[in-house]
Amino acid sequence: MLIETKIRTIIKTLSWRVTATLTTIAIALAITRRIDIAIEIGIIEVFMKILIYYLHERLWTHMSIGIKEKTPIVLWFTGLSGCGKSQLSQAIYEKLQQKKIRVEYFNGRKIRELFPEIGYSPEKRNEHIKQIGSLVKILEKNNTSVVGSFESPFEESREYLRSILKNYIEIHVYATLDYCIKNDIRGLYKKAFSGKLDNFVGVSIKYEEPKTPNIKIDFEHQPVDESTNQIINYLEKNNYL
Amino acid sequence: MLIETKIRTIIKTLSWRVTATLTTIAIALAITRRIDIAIEIGIIEVFMKILIYYLHERLWTHMSIGIKEKTPIVLWFTGLSGCGKSQLSQAIYEKLQQKKIRVEYFNGRKIRELFPEIGYSPEKRNEHIKQIGSLVKILEKNNTSVVGSFESPFEESREYLRSILKNYIEIHVYATLDYCIKNDIRGLYKKAFSGKLDNFVGVSIKYEEPKTPNIKIDFEHQPVDESTNQIINYLEKNNYL
Repeated sequence: MLIETKIRTIIKTLSWRVTATLTTIAIALAITRRIDIAIEIGIIEVFMKILIYYLHERLWTHMSIGIKEKTPIVLWFTGLSGCGKSQLSQAIYEKLQQKKIRVEYFNGRKIRELFPEIGYSPEKRNEHIKQIGSLVKILEKNNTSVVGSFESPFEESREYLRSILKNYIEIHVYATLDYCIKNDIRGLYKKAFSGKLDNFVGVSIKYEEPKTPNIKIDFEHQPVDESTNQIINYLEKNNYL
Repeated sequence: MLIETKIRTIIKTLSWRVTATLTTIAIALAITRRIDIAIEIGIIEVFMKILIYYLHERLWTHMSIGIKEKTPIVLWFTGLSGCGKSQLSQAIYEKLQQKKIRVEYFNGRKIRELFPEIGYSPEKRNEHIKQIGSLVKILEKNNTSVVGSFESPFEESREYLRSILKNYIEIHVYATLDYCIKNDIRGLYKKAFSGKLDNFVGVSIKYEEPKTPNIKIDFEHQPVDESTNQIINYLEKNNYL
């Protein structure tokens, strides 16, 4: 809950008084054509109105009329391992923080700290997404936006998220498997192809291309900056920012 | 994020204008002793200042000076099954909601939907509290208060919560075992005593009395209303509300 402190009201009162009293003096001068009268009116006004303005402001801090909450959004980045979704989602997360939006970041590593029992098989992955969905829903309900970066290879689980969340925005970070393998500094694809790593998306688990993503990013051919702008533009155009 | 709409600024502008222009007319009348001049100044002021005031207000909606967030709190109700912590924590949750505090409610049943794998043994319970702690911490970080109602029988796990949360307020809802058994409409104690229910707090798992609760409620001898007031008074006295 945001509260307006008395300090804010005091500074604002002074800021307004300078603006307003100069206007009053100008008006009084224009009508009476007497600078002494205009200034006298100005001086009395300064003292009386500072008090009245301050009280008027304090009264308004207790009225919620015309104040509304910014809608929280869930930006869900999906794509193959190595497609660039981590880099892009981090960039977006930072942009949102700069805009003073209350936002939480989740990726696979971070979420497994919360839900350590979750496995990697297709069934477990689907279950996993449902748990994350419940968590994200609690945050959304409490006006916290979420940036999530998960392979989330199954259309079913993504559609589940869309169905339970109010403002689910799916961002498909697209890149060819070749590109992803080239970017794989941890050598995960190599391990997966040689059979040392089970249940690997793009190798032993099929990545189902999103059918109705809200945004599709061609990360292979578009630099991070441009991709970030593409997302921010989408959010601005749809009144989310 | 809260935003001030233009409608608010317009209504506030008009509210201020009535107050302010009447003051100006009174001042001008006192100085010039001419009602015609006083009214003329007032009329011109109305039009000019409505515009200036509106612009001054819009400018201030973009300045965050002197605006602060209300501190989120975590109210943790601990006690035996049947001690009355559910009833009391629900009453407090509703009170906080009435005060427009952003607050989330958790109890055993609700949390097990999020973490279905969690068991009931002492080890699992301790693990469980740590997971809940991580979840509550995310909410607290995003300015959402939490009311939690859990038996949480172990001092170790309660101290863990205190250590990771910023505003952990422990409320020990105290009642004798006899009182709890009398209130046990679901017959859980009976099952536990007859050995049909394992790992039951107060029977097969020892409830460790909190050593340093922030609030201790004698629920057996104090009605819900008084107990609710005791908690609200504590929160007010410590500037949490």
